[in-house]
Amino acid sequence: MLNEAAILTARGNKKLIEMEDIDEAALKVKLGPAKKRLQTEEDKKLTAYHEAGHAIVTFNLPHMDPVSRISIVARGVTLGHTQIPPTADRTHETKSHLLAQITAVLGGRAAESLVFNELTTGAANDIEQATQIARRMVVDFGMSELGPMNLGPQVEYSEMGRALWMEPSQLSPEMAAAVDREVKKIIDQCSQQTFEILKKQRRKLDLVARNLLEKETIEQEEFEKLMSARLKKD
Amino acid sequence: MLNEAAILTARGNKKLIEMEDIDEAALKVKLGPAKKRLQTEEDKKLTAYHEAGHAIVTFNLPHMDPVSRISIVARGVTLGHTQIPPTADRTHETKSHLLAQITAVLGGRAAESLVFNELTTGAANDIEQATQIARRMVVDFGMSELGPMNLGPQVEYSEMGRALWMEPSQLSPEMAAAVDREVKKIIDQCSQQTFEILKKQRRKLDLVARNLLEKETIEQEEFEKLMSARLKKD
Amino acid sequence: MLNEAAILTARGNKKLIEMEDIDEAALKVKLGPAKKRLQTEEDKKLTAYHEAGHAIVTFNLPHMDPVSRISIVARGVTLGHTQIPPTADRTHETKSHLLAQITAVLGGRAAESLVFNELTTGAANDIEQATQIARRMVVDFGMSELGPMNLGPQVEYSEMGRALWMEPSQLSPEMAAAVDREVKKIIDQCSQQTFEILKKQRRKLDLVARNLLEKETIEQEEFEKLMSARLKKD
Amino acid sequence: MLNEAAILTARGNKKLIEMEDIDEAALKVKLGPAKKRLQTEEDKKLTAYHEAGHAIVTFNLPHMDPVSRISIVARGVTLGHTQIPPTADRTHETKSHLLAQITAVLGGRAAESLVFNELTTGAANDIEQATQIARRMVVDFGMSELGPMNLGPQVEYSEMGRALWMEPSQLSPEMAAAVDREVKKIIDQCSQQTFEILKKQRRKLDLVARNLLEKETIEQEEFEKLMSARLKKD
Amino acid sequence: MLNEAAILTARGNKKLIEMEDIDEAALKVKLGPAKKRLQTEEDKKLTAYHEAGHAIVTFNLPHMDPVSRISIVARGVTLGHTQIPPTADRTHETKSHLLAQITAVLGGRAAESLVFNELTTGAANDIEQATQIARRMVVDFGMSELGPMNLGPQVEYSEMGRALWMEPSQLSPEMAAAVDREVKKIIDQCSQQTFEILKKQRRKLDLVARNLLEKETIEQEEFEKLMSARLKKD
Amino acid sequence: MLNEAAILTARGNKKLIEMEDIDEAALKVKLGPAKKRLQTEEDKKLTAYHEAGHAIVTFNLPHMDPVSRISIVARGVTLGHTQIPPTADRTHETKSHLLAQITAVLGGRAAESLVFNELTTGAANDIEQATQIARRMVVDFGMSELGPMNLGPQVEYSEMGRALWMEPSQLSPEMAAAVDREVKKIIDQCSQQTFEILKKQRRKLDLVARNLLEKETIEQEEFEKLMSARLKKD
Repeated sequence: MLNEAAILTARGNKKLIEMEDIDEAALKVKLGPAKKRLQTEEDKKLTAYHEAGHAIVTFNLPHMDPVSRISIVARGVTLGHTQIPPTADRTHETKSHLLAQITAVLGGRAAESLVFNELTTGAANDIEQATQIARRMVVDFGMSELGPMNLGPQVEYSEMGRALWMEPSQLSPEMAAAVDREVKKIIDQCSQQTFEILKKQRRKLDLVARNLLEKETIEQEEFEKLMSARLKKD
Repeated sequence: MLNEAAILTARGNKKLIEMEDIDEAALKVKLGPAKKRLQTEEDKKLTAYHEAGHAIVTFNLPHMDPVSRISIVARGVTLGHTQIPPTADRTHETKSHLLAQITAVLGGRAAESLVFNELTTGAANDIEQATQIARRMVVDFGMSELGPMNLGPQVEYSEMGRALWMEPSQLSPEMAAAVDREVKKIIDQCSQQTFEILKKQRRKLDLVARNLLEKETIEQEEFEKLMSARLKKD
Repeated sequence: MLNEAAILTARGNKKLIEMEDIDEAALKVKLGPAKKRLQTEEDKKLTAYHEAGHAIVTFNLPHMDPVSRISIVARGVTLGHTQIPPTADRTHETKSHLLAQITAVLGGRAAESLVFNELTTGAANDIEQATQIARRMVVDFGMSELGPMNLGPQVEYSEMGRALWMEPSQLSPEMAAAVDREVKKIIDQCSQQTFEILKKQRRKLDLVARNLLEKETIEQEEFEKLMSARLKKD
Repeated sequence: MLNEAAILTARGNKKLIEMEDIDEAALKVKLGPAKKRLQTEEDKKLTAYHEAGHAIVTFNLPHMDPVSRISIVARGVTLGHTQIPPTADRTHETKSHLLAQITAVLGGRAAESLVFNELTTGAANDIEQATQIARRMVVDFGMSELGPMNLGPQVEYSEMGRALWMEPSQLSPEMAAAVDREVKKIIDQCSQQTFEILKKQRRKLDLVARNLLEKETIEQEEFEKLMSARLKKD
Repeated sequence: MLNEAAILTARGNKKLIEMEDIDEAALKVKLGPAKKRLQTEEDKKLTAYHEAGHAIVTFNLPHMDPVSRISIVARGVTLGHTQIPPTADRTHETKSHLLAQITAVLGGRAAESLVFNELTTGAANDIEQATQIARRMVVDFGMSELGPMNLGPQVEYSEMGRALWMEPSQLSPEMAAAVDREVKKIIDQCSQQTFEILKKQRRKLDLVARNLLEKETIEQEEFEKLMSARLKKD
Repeated sequence: MLNEAAILTARGNKKLIEMEDIDEAALKVKLGPAKKRLQTEEDKKLTAYHEAGHAIVTFNLPHMDPVSRISIVARGVTLGHTQIPPTADRTHETKSHLLAQITAVLGGRAAESLVFNELTTGAANDIEQATQIARRMVVDFGMSELGPMNLGPQVEYSEMGRALWMEPSQLSPEMAAAVDREVKKIIDQCSQQTFEILKKQRRKLDLVARNLLEKETIEQEEFEKLMSARLKKD
């Protein structure tokens, strides 16, 4: 058994998911030093809603760890980030947690869409990460209706988890199409869920985004206070 | 999140879109020195309408920056160019802006078609650029009906935006066909829009082309004066 | 005739199937030294049920050798293992034994699914191994409805079993799809069988898993005593 | 915008299309020295009708430049040639002119077919050239019903027209089939047109071929005299 | 005309078909020294029936040469072998003889299936050889309903039979599927025939297998005596 | 225009078609020295009918040159040959002559089939040559219902007929299937014609084959005498 969680992380997005709780020094290494980019107010608003979307969806999913920090301070090429350090060394990644990760990672794009009725290229990495997880669920982990059949190229790993050998995929176009349909089904279902969560939490979304625009960074305690705050009647 | 705008520009056409406002020195570097090519009057007319088409469509699209210069002075292999420097450092490329770019880039070909009832090979680069943008919208940015699914080869980027690693596409022929249909749908829709704009603006098109043939280069202020001028009754 | 059994083993999973009876020294070489990983109780429980699933399905299949040891001591990247040393130097691998191997190797995943209503990434290697065996049954061994036709790339072996030469597969997409359907049929049938065995043996599964959690390692004699023990009425 | 005309010429047939008016010295460089090959009368007649076919179709197409010379003197591997030097430095290739080129290039084969009810391998290069132009019309120039979509591998050109980079085509089999159908449609339509022209001009075809057999080379003035000559009643 | 027989042999199985009559010294070179492997009685029985199957099917096919020796002495990786030295230097391989070869080579597997209701991996090489012959019959030799059309990659041979040049196959998926269907048809038909022969000769099969288990090696004279012996009534 | 005839010859079969009239010295270079191979009477008969088939079909086709020699003396790997030196330097290959070549080249196989009701591997080269010609007729020469469209990889030739550059085929699977169908149609039609000729000339076939078996080599004059001889009533 490989440490699939580690592999997913290694190949995944550095921006959203489940980094260990790291201080500024570590952040500097990971994302580069804080950097004042000339952004329009509109751009900052987009970033704030994007990160708030990740955070709020994460908060509302039972299988996700708590959000430890949300920030719209630009670092390197990233315009913001949301930290979700794992509360434990997860040796088994479950289907439920992988679905939750996809749902959370799509939360940024969904927030942009809901609030601005617009899509942006900023979601490209989120989409790639969501697709990677969904594809591995189908191809390697037997987590779709296609069942426990490996549907990718055959790989032989060393006991340290290194790929020693790879055989080109022999999958027929017909089965490849079935794989694509299952991957799409997973993504569509997670995307729908993230929209539903954010629609229900629309006022919280505004609240967190507004706070982010004011303070630029929100720590876990403050985020959770915002989430549990009673919203004023309109 | 990568700076997708930068990537699109880097790979795109040097002729039309959104160069920063540059003076003659910079133009010389970019496009080569001004060059008198032996062109027939017919050729010059085609070029003038082509560039006027880009400029007028751009002017009529809400998401586009203003046109700063139109020219039919041949430079290097280009016979003319239209400058649209971005008014801000666009950190988020929106779907609306990408659609507007495709529509504007197809404006040159549409003008030739409308005025001369002819198509020319001069539109090859415009077509390539329009297709690249439309394909990335579908494949990388989740901006089609196929939703937020990455539909291209998996690429792992460094934090500086460099591709560190690329996995060959595992897309089935069936899904590849769905991608092609979505790309075509975007291009067809933008192409239709560009024709509609130019049909409505036909007299402005003649006006700008005529001015270009006379003066060879039109600056922003003059272009905008032409566009806002009240057209004489016939 | 190649020693197909040896080839299957060489390319297969080091975790489950049919290692010779080896002492701790040998285990250390194979899987690395015993290693205390920080696991949650939930993780340990998952591992215990996963290994118990392999062992119980193996026990209930007529063509499988006896289980000699079950362990949830983490070693290297593995969280547990089940030893099934072959009782004889098997020179002929039969279809029945290959089907039993697939069924046994899917027992870990089935146990997780039955008990926790959850799937985990820990089954990725099991799925790969099951698929490799099933694919070779169809492609090389003529053990599907497609009959005694070689359906893979043509390989010429030396008399020592080494591939001297390989010709790219000339299989049509149509026949490749037929192969995929047969592979899936085998896996689906084995998967169904493993679920049926574990459903019937659900209380034994709990018993073995509980014992594993307590003792971490169960030897053959003890495992067989557990399996033959009369279960108390509820 | 690339100088597509130049590219088409560079990759096209050296035999038919639009060479600049060149004297014997230049011809010797281009096609090799005049060479007496042992040809049967039948072979010479085939060549004469083939070249006459090119010339007469060219003469009857409004978008083609005038024919400056027709010859059945064998040079290098060519058995004859027809010169059509461009009257101007064509910076824009139009769809009309590309269609006319395909029609003219198919004129040699059509003449053989009409007169001898036979097809010969001598048309292979004409067919290749016609197909190249038709394919680029569909794939690069947006001149088919598929619209302004680039349907080939993505190529990035330097400003000097050199390919700097090429991305493998991502076209689906479905869209590739649509491209093939459009290419075939263009060729079929041009082939039909060339037959229609030659059927109507059948007596002129005999006249020019007869003159070629007698004189081996016909210059522009003489060719045009033949074409405008009143044919005697039978 | 190439010596196709030689090519087939060179690429085929060393175990069954038509080796020249060779003494122990030669066998040692070909298959390695005789080797006592620890085999169960069940394994030996499987081998004996497998080899008896080859021999009896061969005996019953009009186009096959006589069996000169059958042996279940393991050598190198082979567990047994059947020798059928050609009685003449066959310069033409006929369709009838190729079909007979396929039928004979499938006799080992058919015997295992009939007697033990089991299939084993030991037939992998037989299946590969049968498929190679059947595929060449369809692709190179025009021996299927697809007629005298070469359906593989184009190969240019030197006059000594060496491949000088190979052009990648241009076969469409549609025609490739037709080839696969024809190959399968040949194999299915031969497989059916081998089963029919062995069913009719079931008691002879037991007789030869029993003798092999006793004596380990049977020479031609003895084999033919067994085949012509009158079987006792039950 | 390339010298397609030369190319076809260069890539074709050295055994049948249209070698210049060459004496023994030349034959030795081409095919190797005469070589007594140990052949059964049956093998010699097959060879005699095979060569007689080529010769008689050739004799009966209007577009073929006369047969100058038939021989069943084995040379190198060939068991016999039929010489058909071209009577003229053919600069144009016609469709009629290419069809006749395919028909003649299939004559050997048809004779074997008619006389012995058997097919042999000896026809492999004939089949390859027939397929090469038929495929080029469809792909390069516009000689099928698909019309004057190049359907292969784009090749740019130097004026000396050398391939300077080759672009990978962009043909869709759909069009590739259409090509395969046209190639098959040509081969089927020629194969039918060759059978019809040989059925009508069955007694001549026996006569020529008998003479070949007696004399081993027949020169043109003798062959033509045999062909014009009045056959005795049975």
